[in-house]
Parts: sequence; structure tokens; C-alpha cells
Amino acid sequence: MKNNQFAIVPTDLATKKQELTRLHLLQDGDQDLSAKDLWLTLLTRINPDGHTAAADQEWKNGLLATPDLSIEQWAQSNSALTTDVFYLVALQLLHFEPALDFAIDQPMAAMKKINLPFEAHDQWDVGAVISAFYLLLNTSTKNGQNLLDRLTVAGLFTWTFDLPASQKPLFFNGKPMACFDPEKFIREAVYVETDMDTDNDGHADLVKVEITRPQDTNHGLKVPVAFTASPYYQGTNDQWGEKITHHVNETIDRKEKNDVAPSEPHFNLDFDRQTVNGHADQATESFSYQPSYSLNDYLAARGYAVVISAGIGTKDSDGLQTCGSPEQVDSMKAVIEWLHGDRRAFTDRTSGIEVKANWCNGNVGMTGRSYLGTLSTAVATTGVAGLKAIVSEAAISNWYDYYRENGLVMAPGGFQGEDADVLAAETFSRTKRPADYRRIESTNNAYMKGLLLAQDRTTGNYNAFWARRNYLPNVDHIKCDVMMVHGLNDWNVKPSNVKHLFDALQEVDVTKKLILHQGQHIYINAFQSLDFSAMVNLWFANKLWGVANQADELLPDVLVQDNAHEQTWTPYHNWSGNHETTLNLTNNSLTAADVHDHAQVDYQDQQDDAVYKEWCKHPAKWSHALLNDNDGHFSAHFLTAPLKSDWLLRGMPMLNVRMAASVDHGILSAWLVDRGTDKRLTTSPVVLGKGTLQEAYHYGNDDLREFQFQKEATPAKTISYGHINLQNRHDASTVDDLKPGEFVDVELPLQPIFHTLKKGHQLELILFGTDYGMTLRGNEAIRYQIDTYNSSLIIPDDQQ
Amino acid sequence: MKNNQFAIVPTDLATKKQELTRLHLLQDGDQDLSAKDLWLTLLTRINPDGHTAAADQEWKNGLLATPDLSIEQWAQSNSALTTDVFYLVALQLLHFEPALDFAIDQPMAAMKKINLPFEAHDQWDVGAVISAFYLLLNTSTKNGQNLLDRLTVAGLFTWTFDLPASQKPLFFNGKPMACFDPEKFIREAVYVETDMDTDNDGHADLVKVEITRPQDTNHGLKVPVAFTASPYYQGTNDQWGEKITHHVNETIDRKEKNDVAPSEPHFNLDFDRQTVNGHADQATESFSYQPSYSLNDYLAARGYAVVISAGIGTKDSDGLQTCGSPEQVDSMKAVIEWLHGDRRAFTDRTSGIEVKANWCNGNVGMTGRSYLGTLSTAVATTGVAGLKAIVSEAAISNWYDYYRENGLVMAPGGFQGEDADVLAAETFSRTKRPADYRRIESTNNAYMKGLLLAQDRTTGNYNAFWARRNYLPNVDHIKCDVMMVHGLNDWNVKPSNVKHLFDALQEVDVTKKLILHQGQHIYINAFQSLDFSAMVNLWFANKLWGVANQADELLPDVLVQDNAHEQTWTPYHNWSGNHETTLNLTNNSLTAADVHDHAQVDYQDQQDDAVYKEWCKHPAKWSHALLNDNDGHFSAHFLTAPLKSDWLLRGMPMLNVRMAASVDHGILSAWLVDRGTDKRLTTSPVVLGKGTLQEAYHYGNDDLREFQFQKEATPAKTISYGHINLQNRHDASTVDDLKPGEFVDVELPLQPIFHTLKKGHQLELILFGTDYGMTLRGNEAIRYQIDTYNSSLIIPDDQQ
Repeated sequence: MKNNQFAIVPTDLATKKQELTRLHLLQDGDQDLSAKDLWLTLLTRINPDGHTAAADQEWKNGLLATPDLSIEQWAQSNSALTTDVFYLVALQLLHFEPALDFAIDQPMAAMKKINLPFEAHDQWDVGAVISAFYLLLNTSTKNGQNLLDRLTVAGLFTWTFDLPASQKPLFFNGKPMACFDPEKFIREAVYVETDMDTDNDGHADLVKVEITRPQDTNHGLKVPVAFTASPYYQGTNDQWGEKITHHVNETIDRKEKNDVAPSEPHFNLDFDRQTVNGHADQATESFSYQPSYSLNDYLAARGYAVVISAGIGTKDSDGLQTCGSPEQVDSMKAVIEWLHGDRRAFTDRTSGIEVKANWCNGNVGMTGRSYLGTLSTAVATTGVAGLKAIVSEAAISNWYDYYRENGLVMAPGGFQGEDADVLAAETFSRTKRPADYRRIESTNNAYMKGLLLAQDRTTGNYNAFWARRNYLPNVDHIKCDVMMVHGLNDWNVKPSNVKHLFDALQEVDVTKKLILHQGQHIYINAFQSLDFSAMVNLWFANKLWGVANQADELLPDVLVQDNAHEQTWTPYHNWSGNHETTLNLTNNSLTAADVHDHAQVDYQDQQDDAVYKEWCKHPAKWSHALLNDNDGHFSAHFLTAPLKSDWLLRGMPMLNVRMAASVDHGILSAWLVDRGTDKRLTTSPVVLGKGTLQEAYHYGNDDLREFQFQKEATPAKTISYGHINLQNRHDASTVDDLKPGEFVDVELPLQPIFHTLKKGHQLELILFGTDYGMTLRGNEAIRYQIDTYNSSLIIPDDQQ
Repeated sequence: MKNNQFAIVPTDLATKKQELTRLHLLQDGDQDLSAKDLWLTLLTRINPDGHTAAADQEWKNGLLATPDLSIEQWAQSNSALTTDVFYLVALQLLHFEPALDFAIDQPMAAMKKINLPFEAHDQWDVGAVISAFYLLLNTSTKNGQNLLDRLTVAGLFTWTFDLPASQKPLFFNGKPMACFDPEKFIREAVYVETDMDTDNDGHADLVKVEITRPQDTNHGLKVPVAFTASPYYQGTNDQWGEKITHHVNETIDRKEKNDVAPSEPHFNLDFDRQTVNGHADQATESFSYQPSYSLNDYLAARGYAVVISAGIGTKDSDGLQTCGSPEQVDSMKAVIEWLHGDRRAFTDRTSGIEVKANWCNGNVGMTGRSYLGTLSTAVATTGVAGLKAIVSEAAISNWYDYYRENGLVMAPGGFQGEDADVLAAETFSRTKRPADYRRIESTNNAYMKGLLLAQDRTTGNYNAFWARRNYLPNVDHIKCDVMMVHGLNDWNVKPSNVKHLFDALQEVDVTKKLILHQGQHIYINAFQSLDFSAMVNLWFANKLWGVANQADELLPDVLVQDNAHEQTWTPYHNWSGNHETTLNLTNNSLTAADVHDHAQVDYQDQQDDAVYKEWCKHPAKWSHALLNDNDGHFSAHFLTAPLKSDWLLRGMPMLNVRMAASVDHGILSAWLVDRGTDKRLTTSPVVLGKGTLQEAYHYGNDDLREFQFQKEATPAKTISYGHINLQNRHDASTVDDLKPGEFVDVELPLQPIFHTLKKGHQLELILFGTDYGMTLRGNEAIRYQIDTYNSSLIIPDDQQ
């Protein structure tokens, strides 16, 4: 294991003593003890399993203080406390194992190798013991949680549950501790009234909100909120979605300038509102089952109220599913307005009894991945008051970049044929109340018909429908701080989504943090190598509890998981480098040198019927064939020479191609490949312990995970790609003419990267037509010609 | 979904009323209502999310009573209650969905298709409503849990937590309800003193026992125990195990009659015992983390104390790991003796303060899979008092059948090179207390050296080491009732283990139940299609709480999951059929007809070096090649004609072969294959909902799972197999001579089966030498000859 911790707040000794005393770990008279006795005393106090003399003795009897003596034996010796003794014991407390993780006679070598923080002293005095012990409590254990959290999970601090509300939360090292009793959480549901009537029933849409908050909030404590906006939370219609998934084995047709899709249906503007018939102090409805999101569980135990809403068009709410439209965003914004005291909510759907979020301190953070992260971003662009910070993971910033690309209908990786209408159907969970669905069925069907046309699978162009679902133009309205998390290998919500958001935010006066990991479309709060949950706790403590904990300084601006080394996370200040390398194309190579030969390379897109059908069924077979199509039957390959040293590629590569198609329409697709037989990180994190990661004492658990090097080497890895309709050379909303055989210039930005191409590897560019995993698959007889002399690839990197 | 429920106890109307009244679902005056109003009233009482008039109204507003009316609307109509109305509502309450699971105008068709129990009435009176409502509460919902359990999970019955201990448990339909507050469970650890000193330190080995019990046991309630004996529970040494895993690319050598391995090291018999220095009412130590086993979570919430011990040779206990020896078994038996009041335990390892299990009613059931199930079986064969029932899942009954077979060293499927010493090292979790391990290291290393020799990988013969680990000779000592669960595709603990136990139990006067599923080495308590958890609750209610609930009659003697239909579980009385079909071998066929030609078939075992290395690395490539080696390079294939109708094969096939080897030693391996391109069940259950199966209110969860037909057809499936050393033709402990070229008769029982070979499929027998997945892999140049005329295959089945 290699530890990467960013949420440790540098703390002075006086504060350390104060915080340890507050936790009863440091007690009266302790400072009169010798350093050795103080260390033994502190150890006794963190034995989680028993507090009799016998239990303490056995605990010390089971841990090594030196290679040959248990702590119990060492305690009775004349030896003084040394750095080696302190950290040999520390490694065991941190759940590392002799032989496996460290040599018992070389503890400091292990501390350094695992990258654990430590304090070495020639002479250990009382101050040194206190200081190092405090640091140790903040140090990651083998499962990535710090020792304090591990002890909390073991039940050592359950006494804090009973502290008066006025003394909570208990902050330790700048972050709230898990001092809230999960067994006494209040679970309640309310209905927020919005300013719209998307289901056209004449009444303002109500959205159900589910709240989990500490009992202490009934005794005067006001807490901030971790709000998750999830259209999935009330259930999904997977089979309906499958049923209406679009056929993609279709040609991309030539399009004309006047091809414009109908606009999407309008919503009713003439509706009434609920009459207020009274006020309640408390909600009257509760809820039972809720799918678990372990970061929220972690936060809940630390005093953040967890609030979840599925928004309009879901079970127990009103309205329709609109796939990211401003109406859906406003329904989530309405929840924050209620939490902030700016909007009303009711105890139920009919009685008109209003209820206020009087337990809330008015500060809201948003959490969640994918659609959930998307709505965090979208709500942030409304600039709503009360929203102080978001952690948007794997979020869409522009739905056009999710279902379309440069004038092409485009699938999210792995979801061929999905589109906005499919996602709307899948998340329309009003079906889960059958009688409610029966009443709304025809209204919804009519809207879905309009949505189908408005999204326009015919041209693939950017239009008003997509403009309504593009949050990027409103980034300058963002008033909250933004933490972005994205996988560099996320082919579902592609990295361009976060790159565009990150770039736009550079002009906005808020704090922005970016974390890029080597995963696909995943959560990263259960990793061994990174203290992500604690980083979020630090961030939210600062933004939502108002703790001056240096969060903005401690968290890196850009944190990137290394692809070439396991468990290595490196801070940077920017995504893109300060330099660009231009690579020219020849017949089959990529070179920084000048090129003088006017070569033409061509390939054709049509496959034998059997091959075509096989590839449609198994796109992985197509991608394997593409990587191995070296003689260029259906693709053109350009390779650099093997690298003489590692090369860090960072930013958005730009491809310039002069090309022709044999017909009056066509696709240019491009792959950027790291070519070189090598062991690479696993595609998905490996589960190190199923359900072993506990978020709090008897509350919340997750699978501990980590990327590891694959057991076998692979010959290549695709690191970026891009697609463009040859009739959208200028932009996605404008149709260009194209004549058969006419050479045109195409500028295609590829997916942004942050990738170390290792010494000996080669960078490879593959140009082709149909992408069986993402584009329409017409299997047309189209021959493409590339004028290599007038083509180039620009790679952003660092000045060498 | 297809429902298979066995734990519904037939109940008379008076008892139904009594039980519903006890749950406050039926109340004073209810029986004066009309049938319709009573039904509406009962519905209101099971709305889990709120109890205001508004919440009730919305609940009824969301459910359909007829295809066009919500319950709320229907309630205001003049229509009477009908069977269609009752079950249209019932389907929705059971979480089935319109369109997906049922047609709203055909509820009864769905009830029948899903195999849900129902009561149809022409006229619904009050008694009919009560009776049908009671049945409905006992009916499986879409996730396989019955409605009562789903409502419990939703928090509807949390008021039962506060009932006085004297009124608990609350039984409903013959089974205890989840009326114990998981948030108030007592967690404690004690140390049971055994009658042995396996670590040779002069003191009787103590074993740590971890107990989770309801708080009500501190108020006079005595509860039974679900005891899990798991050597894994305190942690494992996976990397140590990997390191000492044996090399298997070695020849099986010729063996001689006098090849006898040294016996295993003896344990110290001269040791003292702890002096009793006092008595405690309560344990003084607790524990924090415990890996979850969801069936135990289910039982814990229903009032069974869950007791776990890792036995000797584990963290916090004394002793060594002995891999299934009588000492390990006795250390688990000792736990039951303490629970039953026949042995002493202490509050800690040193003080000598005794503590009794005064909260226990003296009745113990054992649970667990694999090694855990193995120890359940083993402890049962001691006949220990207090053990009333076991549920042994995927259990070893004879360790020789796990690591050896008919004179061959044999790997559990997927674990090439594992042996008794490897498992001992992996489970020796005293390493997790580094100072404790340091003190015991040399003792353990010396024992491990002896174990390595005694297990005898040289000859593979059955010897005294294995005899000590064979529980079958003691099956007649079993005094408890036995439920066995095993996967018909379990290639880890092979089905012969359960077949031998099942057969031996036929002569023993206890109740025995057998469940055979289509999985590999898995738990089955999270399936959608079978009410397994409720079956165990019914069984344990009868055996441990003493409830007269007809468990022995309601649970099938033999329950088998069908391989040819999804979600179909069929009761039988026996494993084996009442008939045998003898199939004769010809050159390449299997036939029931007489055979007259004296054909000889031969194959040779050696592979080209490259192929050999590839197959060693990827045994799946070998098995694929074997299935396709139709021209017999390294195997002989014999096929029946395509079947004219389905054929159910049940029992242990017997293969008789007359054969010769070209050298003085050799292996006969055999596969039995279901040949026929068809969609088959998934190898592992498909996860239908990650973490969605809740075992109780805010307590325990699991992934909902189910086998489904694979999306693509496969050409063949291996259904049985067997291996024998040609020098162990008479038995595994006796060495036979073998001369090169000498024809000998070999009788080889194959793994027992319960398999429907479908019409049009063929049964195939494949004979070969090296099994790359399980045997040693010597790649010797051995040619085998089969005298087909003197060979046959006997398949147990049913009289046609």
C-alpha cells in the first residue's frame, strides 16, 4: 500500500492537547508522567475491545514494541521510548502486518515506503508523545481510513453521542467527528412546492424530499445539508428503457441546412398553488428503504443532514421526467430554497400544512455521481442562495456531449442506442404508484412523443433542445465552491464534460478543485490509497460548518492518479501543460520532424455482412480488430517512434485532418492509443474487502477497493478519441456541404487526457469511420482518403 | 419471477385472528365492519410511510383496485370486494409491477403464473378477508421475502421491540418475528477452556467466543443460539498461503506398497487448567468488527443469539491450526458445551473469572458454508449435548474428498496446489497479534513441518492423517437434525461430500433435509425464487424454540433446483432414482444396446511444451480444448444419440473401464458432459439488487441474487467427473501393482448429479489423463488404451 493523505490539518501543540483532552484521551495528570508511561497510558485508552486490567494487559501482550518484546514486556524493561518503538507499535495500530507490510526490525523504512506521516525524535519527551500520538490518530490505516475513524467505527467514542447538542459537533483536526448516533437519526419526508406545472394538471408540482438528520437537531443544533439530487432514487423502469432503446444499425444520412427538428413540448404556465392551512413543527411522514451511498453515510454520522430528492417525474412527486431540462434543475433548486428558508414545503401532498427546515443552518453542499453530479453542476449554475459547495463526480456539463458529438448521434460507452427519451422513461418512477401512473399515463406519453422528435436523432445537430440542457453558458452564475471528480477512463460521461466545466470555471471567482482518477464511471470514496472521504469532510467543514481549517490550501487544485504507478496521486496546479507538441503525419508515422512527402492514405468503412453482424453484437471484437488492423483495411494507423523517456500528455489533444469521403456524407473517428506491451492498471478497482469499510459505528459499509496492476501485460490502451460528422466541420449546429471526393479540413478536439506514456512505448493515432461502440453503424461503402501532408496532431504537454 | 415457498404453516382461522390481533393488525370492532371496509382498514394499517389521514389517503390514491380506479376511488364506489380486486391490490403490495409482472386486468393469471398462494372467493365475507390477508402477509414479495418481513424491514413493527421480555419472541405463522431491537444487541466476548494444549505451552487452550444477543436476555428471556464455527473469522493470511501453495507441474510417480508417510505431530497431553478466581454475571469484553453473514443477521433480529468462534489457532485464542482435525472440532464442541452449561468459560484470558451463558436456553443450531459447514457436520458427529440442528452448507464430510481422490493429489476447483498445510497457514490468525505470534512462531513452524509430511503429497494415499479428518465413520453418533445445502456445480467442495453424508444419514434416526441448488460454492439465502431464510427460521423455531410448526413435514426431504427451468425448485423424497441405465461403450458412442465389437480406443497424455505451458497457466483453455478434442488426440469421447425426450439423471454415476497405460503408473480422469447447444443457467447468480435485501429494520443487508438463463447458448456443460490413480484400483489406502501395457479393470464413481438432460441433447463421456484444473500435471508421455467392450457407464435414474 501507498498512502496519499491530504486532509491532515497542521496543528500546534496547544491545540493538539486541547483536542485530545476533549476526547478524554489526554487526562489530568498525564503530563506529569514520563514520556514512556504517557505513551503506555495513551495506548491503553485506545484499546477498543475491553477496559479491564486483564484486557489492557492482553492488548499490550499482543503487540510488539521491539522485534522481540511485546509492549507489556518492554514496559517492564528499562528501555526508553524511541522512534523505532513508537512507530513499530504505530504500524500495528494502523493495521499493517509484519512480514507482509513491514519488517519488524525496520519500522521507519516502512513508514517512509508506505508514505505515512511521522515525527522522529532523538529524545521523546511528553510533548513529543502527545504531538506524535495526535498525528497518528490522523494517519491512514491500511484500509485508507484514519486511525481516529477506525477507533470510532470500533465504538470507542460512542460516549460522544450523549453530549449535549450545544457541544456538537466535536471537531477534531478541523473536521467534525462521527459523534452523532446513527441509531437515533430522524428520517422524515416533506413535499416542496415548485414554480411549475410540468404534468399539466393545473397545480404547482410538488417534489418529495427525504431527510435524515441527527436527533440533536431536535434539541437546538442547526446542521448543514449534504443534498443529493437523484432521479434514480425512487426506482427505475429498466425494461421500459430497454424496450425503447434506439436501433443504431442505421446509416448517417446526408443532411441539409434546413433540417430542423420540432421544438420540445411546452409546459403549462397557468396553475394554482396549495393553500396554506396551517403549520407543523415536525414532518409527519417518514420513509423506510433508501439505496445507500456510502459517502453520504459517512457524512451523516458526522452531523451533516442527508437530504435526497428525486425531483419531478418520480414516485410520490408530481411532474414529468425531462432529462436535465431547466425544469428538472429548478425542482432540485427548489429543495435548496426550502432548506435555506426561501420556499415552502408541506407535510404531505394534500393537507396544506406547511413545515420549515428549522433544523438546518442554511448551508447546503451537493454530492453524487453521474446524473446526480450533473444536477449538482446544473443547480450550481442557477446561483441559488444557500448552496455553498458541490462535489460533482463524473458529471455531465452539457447533455449534447453525452448523447451527441460534433453533429453525430453518439452513445455513452456501453449504452448503444440510449438517448434522452430513454433516460426519461427509465427514471419516470411515477409508474411505481400504479394508480398515479394510470392518471398521468397519457400526458406523459404525449410529452415523450415530443421529446423523441425534439432530441433529433435524424441530424444529430445541436439545437434548442440541447441548448436548454447545456449548463456551460451559465457557469459564470456559479456562486458556490466546486470540487470536480472524474475518471480519465470514463467512456460513459466522457472527460470532455469535466474539462469544459473546469476551463469555464477558471474565469469564475469561486474555489475549484479537480480530481482525476484512473477509473471509469465510479465512486472513489472507498479507496485504500486516498483519503477522499476525509477530504470531502474537510471541504464541507470549511464551506458548510464555517471551520477555518485551511481546506482551500490543503486540497490540491488538481489531483491526478498516476497511470504508470500504483496508488500514486500527484498534485498539480492545472490540467493542461504549458506547451504543445505538434506531430505531423506521414504514410504510417507520427513525427515532430518536418514532413515533405505528400502521401495519401485511404481506408474504407464497409465490412462483410458476417463481420458486420458480429461486431454489432460484440463491439469488443471490433475494437480488438481495429487495434490490430495494421495493414489499414478499414483504418489508418500513425505511430511515433518508441519513446526515449517518459512523456506526460496533459490536456485536450487537437487533430487537424484534410480528408475526403467517396460519398456526400461521412464520419471521421479517431483513437489515440498508448502502444507498448506493459502491465497496466485494472480497468475497474479490485475489491480488497467486501463490505469491510465501515463509515461509522454500526452504520454504513462499502467494499474496500483499489486499482492494481493487471496480472498480465497488454499490448495497447486507448487513451483518447473523438468523432465528427464531416458535415459539421464548423460547428455542431451548422450543416456544411460535402461533395463526394472533395478534400475538406476537419478540426477535431479529442477527449482530454492526463497520461504518462512510458519510455519505450509509442503514441498511435488511428483514423477510421464507424465506431461500433458509439456511433450509428450504417455499414455503407464509403472510402475515406487522408491527405497526411496537411494533417497534424497537437498534444498539450509540458515544456521539456 | 417464479415463487417457491415452503415455510408457510397451514393455520386455522381462529389462530389467524389471534396472531393478527397480537400484531394490532386486527382490532376491536373490526369484525363488525363489512368485508370491504375491513379490507380497507387492514390496508391502512400496513402503510409503512405515515399514519396521518392524508398519508393514508395518498397511499390508497396510488394503488389500483381495478384497472381504472385507485383504491380511494373504488372505496367510494358501490362495488363489493372481489377476488380480482383483492389480488390486484395484493400484487402491488407484494412489489410486483404492472406491465412488467402482471396485466392490470388479469391479476389472477399473474398470481398463478408467479406461483403465489391465494384464496379465491365468490363472496368475500369478513372471515375470508381475514384469512386471505393473513396468507398475504406470509406470501413472498418480489424480492423473495414475505410481506410481513418487508413491512418489518420498513419499520412497521418497531413497537414490538419494546414488549416485555416475557412476551417474546412474538411468533407469527410458527416462526419468530423480527421483534428484537438490533440497535440494542449486546456484543460480548468470552474465553472457553478446552481439554487440550495444541500449542504445547503447558496450559489448556482457550478459545475466544463472540456473542451477539438481544437485550431482552438481560431481562430473563432465554434464547437459543445460532452458532457459526469459522476459522476465517479473525482474519486470514492469504499471502502466506499463496507462498506455500504447492507446485503441481510434477509427475505422479509410481508408488510401492511400503510407501507410508510419517504420522502427524502429537499434541501435549500434560497441561494445567486455569484456576477459578471468581464469577461474573456478565462478560467484560466486547468486540467491534465482525464480517457479516446475512443469514445470521436475519436470525439475530428474530431472537437467536449469534455466536461465532474461530477455534484454536486464531487471533485471541490459543492453539494451532490443524485443518479439520479432531482437536479443531473439539474446540468448537467446547463452545456448545459451555452454551449448554457443561463447560466453563472466563471473562478474559488471565483473571480466572468464570462466566456462564445464563442467557441461553441450552439449544444450539449451527450455520455456515464451506469450512464453516464442515465444522457443523464434524461437531454433529461428536453427538454433543445441546446441539439440536445444523444447516451445513457446501460442507466437507471427509477431507480426503477435498484434497485427494482415489490415490491422487487433487485440488479443489480453482485452487491448484492448495493442501491441508496451506489452509492451516491461511487461517492461523494468531499472526494478527504480532507479539503473540512471535512467541508461538517456532512451535507452529515445527507443527507445520510435520503436517506437510503427514498429508503426504508423494503417494496421495488415504492414511492415518486423512482418517482423523474423515467424519463419515462417526455419522451414526449424530443426535441432531441435519439440513444439508449443496451446489450441484460446486467444484470446490465437490458434491460427493454431501452425497456420502446424506447416504450415511439414512441409517440414523434424525430428521434430514437436503437442498441441491444449481450454483457453485455459494450461499442461497438471498435468492428471489426461494424462501430459504424463512425455511431456516421455521426449522430452527421447531428445533431450538420448540414450536410445533410442522417443520419436518413442510420442508421437503430433498429439494432440487431445476437446471432446465428458471426459478424452479422441486421436492423429491430421495436423491437417487429407483433405476439404473447401463450404457455400453463402442468406438465413439454410448449406447444402451448390446455391443459386439471389441474396439480399442487410445489417447496419449503428453502435449507440446508450448501448449502444456499455456494450459498450465490457463486451465480454462485446456478444458475448452478437451471439449473440442473430438478426434481424440489426448482424450476419448463417447456420445449417446440425441435424446428423444428429457432424461433426469439422479445419483452417483459409476464408470467401469478396462484399460492399460504404456508405463507403470497413470491416471484415469472422466468427464460427463451435457452436449447440446442451449441456453443454460448462469454459472453464478446474477445480482438483481446490490445491497437491497434488508434482513431487519436497519440491520443487515445483502445483494438480491438469482440464476438466470445466459443470454447466449453454449454447446456443452460438464455435469460430473472423477479421477483415479491406476495404482489405487481397489481403494485409496492400498497400492496396486501396474505393469506397462497391462489391462486392468477400474471402477470409478463419478461426482453425484441431479440433472435433466433435455430432449435433443446428448450425454457424452470423455476419458483422459491429466486434469489441468485439479490433478498434478507431469506432461509425461503416457499412452492409454481403453477396451471399450469391457467398459460401461451406469447412470442412476427413474424407471421410465
